[in-house]
Amino acid sequence: MQHVERYLADNADRFVDELKQFLRIPSVSASSAHRGDVRRAAEFVRDHLAAAGLTVQIVETEGHPIIHGSWMEAKDAPTVLVYGHYDVQPPDPLNEWVTPPFEPTVRDGCLYARGATDDKGQVFTHVKSLEAWMKSAGRLPVNVQVVIEGEEEVGSNNLDRFLEQNRDRLRCDVAVISDTSQFGPGQPAITYGLRGIVACEITLRGANQDVHSGVFGGSIANPVNSLAKLIASLHDDNGRVTVPGFYDDVTPMSPAERDRLAKLPFDEATFRGSLGVAATHGESGFTTIERRWCRPTCDVNGIIGGYQGEGPKTIIPAKATAKITCRLVPNQNPDKIMAALQTHFERLCPSGLKLQFTTYHGCPAHVFDPTSPFMAAAKTAIRSAFDVEPVFIREGGSIPVVGSLKQILGVDTLLLGWGQNTDNLHGPNEHFSLDDFRRGTLASAHLWNELSRTAVVAR
Amino acid sequence: MQHVERYLADNADRFVDELKQFLRIPSVSASSAHRGDVRRAAEFVRDHLAAAGLTVQIVETEGHPIIHGSWMEAKDAPTVLVYGHYDVQPPDPLNEWVTPPFEPTVRDGCLYARGATDDKGQVFTHVKSLEAWMKSAGRLPVNVQVVIEGEEEVGSNNLDRFLEQNRDRLRCDVAVISDTSQFGPGQPAITYGLRGIVACEITLRGANQDVHSGVFGGSIANPVNSLAKLIASLHDDNGRVTVPGFYDDVTPMSPAERDRLAKLPFDEATFRGSLGVAATHGESGFTTIERRWCRPTCDVNGIIGGYQGEGPKTIIPAKATAKITCRLVPNQNPDKIMAALQTHFERLCPSGLKLQFTTYHGCPAHVFDPTSPFMAAAKTAIRSAFDVEPVFIREGGSIPVVGSLKQILGVDTLLLGWGQNTDNLHGPNEHFSLDDFRRGTLASAHLWNELSRTAVVAR
Repeated sequence: MQHVERYLADNADRFVDELKQFLRIPSVSASSAHRGDVRRAAEFVRDHLAAAGLTVQIVETEGHPIIHGSWMEAKDAPTVLVYGHYDVQPPDPLNEWVTPPFEPTVRDGCLYARGATDDKGQVFTHVKSLEAWMKSAGRLPVNVQVVIEGEEEVGSNNLDRFLEQNRDRLRCDVAVISDTSQFGPGQPAITYGLRGIVACEITLRGANQDVHSGVFGGSIANPVNSLAKLIASLHDDNGRVTVPGFYDDVTPMSPAERDRLAKLPFDEATFRGSLGVAATHGESGFTTIERRWCRPTCDVNGIIGGYQGEGPKTIIPAKATAKITCRLVPNQNPDKIMAALQTHFERLCPSGLKLQFTTYHGCPAHVFDPTSPFMAAAKTAIRSAFDVEPVFIREGGSIPVVGSLKQILGVDTLLLGWGQNTDNLHGPNEHFSLDDFRRGTLASAHLWNELSRTAVVAR
Repeated sequence: MQHVERYLADNADRFVDELKQFLRIPSVSASSAHRGDVRRAAEFVRDHLAAAGLTVQIVETEGHPIIHGSWMEAKDAPTVLVYGHYDVQPPDPLNEWVTPPFEPTVRDGCLYARGATDDKGQVFTHVKSLEAWMKSAGRLPVNVQVVIEGEEEVGSNNLDRFLEQNRDRLRCDVAVISDTSQFGPGQPAITYGLRGIVACEITLRGANQDVHSGVFGGSIANPVNSLAKLIASLHDDNGRVTVPGFYDDVTPMSPAERDRLAKLPFDEATFRGSLGVAATHGESGFTTIERRWCRPTCDVNGIIGGYQGEGPKTIIPAKATAKITCRLVPNQNPDKIMAALQTHFERLCPSGLKLQFTTYHGCPAHVFDPTSPFMAAAKTAIRSAFDVEPVFIREGGSIPVVGSLKQILGVDTLLLGWGQNTDNLHGPNEHFSLDDFRRGTLASAHLWNELSRTAVVAR
């Protein structure tokens, strides 16, 4: 471990430079215009894993490629699957970035760029800890399977097929993903639960084109006004979702867990301050942490309709569209929720308008046992790198692959987030603390060591 | 009149070519980028009025210039003020135009371009009928004051000051405006009533930037969801506006007028078909014509918030904006309605969001006496040109200058629309029938003759 630690220290600056190279590639998987960039990012990952000494291949899919690397020479040691993604969210709204999203810039000890924390920076901690072991010790203490995909931000449409087709090759004892956050600055965490998600888009169409609001206003349904009614119908005055059946399958939180979460060092005023809001808001009867991690939601992510320019324009818009996601909690079925949403909208759509309902990716929520030997190994590794005991938390986001790894390969996942909630993942000015990048890489190096002591589970 | 009619017939093709030149100028008054184009359109009008033999000047304002032309040699004859506007609405959405908005194109007997009917094409009928009289008869049968402004589509902010400062010079007996529509193809109309308007924009702001919908969703107010609630709160299930005080001052329609409007040859199925909607929609207890002309409305003209691109994006948007207009009917006070709207939104804005309320132009509704001698003159002129008796109608749109002409100059306005409701004014593929352009120009030429027989009102 000493040689590994020295290698990490000696090469820290180079790792940051290489991460900047990675971040310069605008690998926006949602945009067909960036297809070539997404491929360049895949090749970048391949080259770095190969240089570390792993056997690597680019696996073509119907969408963006998957990078598969492996090193299986640690006889009698367990096998760890490392998952990550090299694609990033769209950078909009561009005009709110202080420095351009694909020109990585260090300010106040943080590296600013789209993908800095989600997930290029965090993936890179594992890539570089593997390099450190191989280059300084000539081996890894565990066997590894590395799977880095390019479609996480658009639903991982081709990942499950890859996992299914390579079930034997990918056989492992536990999975590791760094795509979450610490609980706060200086307070690392192990995430044992994630929310699920469903995403859809609804469009209401009225007249065959925008028409004059004076000539026709009052006599035909306005798609924007009507879309607003549909959206407003999603919640009651207590912040509860009103879609029939929405809460039917929700597993209630245990009193013990509510008690444990209430003891986390969470300061509501700091939380409000970091977001710039005067008040929190949500479902009555739950704390802010519970609302974020353990309760389902229904949020509009984008809305568009009618005139978008400067000043007024007197039209009745021809159509209006809203992008909507629901965050799900354990035992809610994504398909069932999506069907309930569609039924709800269809029931409320006024005559004179046409409703178009489009669905995107979905995945269920997951909660793992926080007392397993793998969790213990992770806890020790993190303590060694961060000099502080990690806390066990849940997370409000969704990582669909966690469900796939459980279902297809039968393994639990260690969710070890090196970033911060305040890193603006998915928003403008996304960033990653260089300290967190360094400590995350060190914790990752320790993790391979700690996991080498856990039992190989026969599969 | 025979010489005038011959001149109109002989020069009809040239008039169309000149109108095309006028329409090629993208005089979008709402866009600062088009400032130079707006001025070019003003100069175009000036040149054509001057060539016709009128005394013309460009009057500078704090915004776009006003063209003032006059010919006051008709001793003992009444004076007619002709108002129109040379500015146009923005052409969005551009991708829905079959041919580009500023490349005038004739298809199926119609001229397609932004401004074809609103209002360049209609203004041009008067410019060319004046030319016809001057070039063929060497005089006009009435005195004329011509006022063509460039800010009608953005609230006519500088027009009232011009009218006030030139009250004496502009003294007249009646005003004429062609900026409305016929009742239908082959059925010309005289419009004796207009709705008023108020326009505003509301923006709700939450977190200081877009944030991750997984990490934060459920714990802070979503500006789009909340904006939808505000918009949904504007109407009840009967299509009535719920803003407190909204209907307080509305003058109820007389049974006689309701009866007369019910007798107009209006076919609901044709109306639905022309718009491509399966059903009409509006305030319970009123007919489609009443809803369009005689009842107030509250419509969203545009909405924007959060992610606007392809596919999903999992954010809670930082802000959301809606552009809203209300159409007003006689006796509603625009300022009072605007204040009521603002109070309504402020009362419903949830804690944790900030509301910004911006107001644009407003004007009250107007209704004139359909039995005056001026109305009779207009009726005769239209019958001479269209070979059919015009009907008396109201209109759902707003022409703020009509109120200014009444208030500042003390005159009623003859609203003589040569266009059609289906000309897509304010929408994509705006057009103007070349037959209507020709007949409108002829009716205008007759109008000067008919009005010469009405009494001069001492002022």
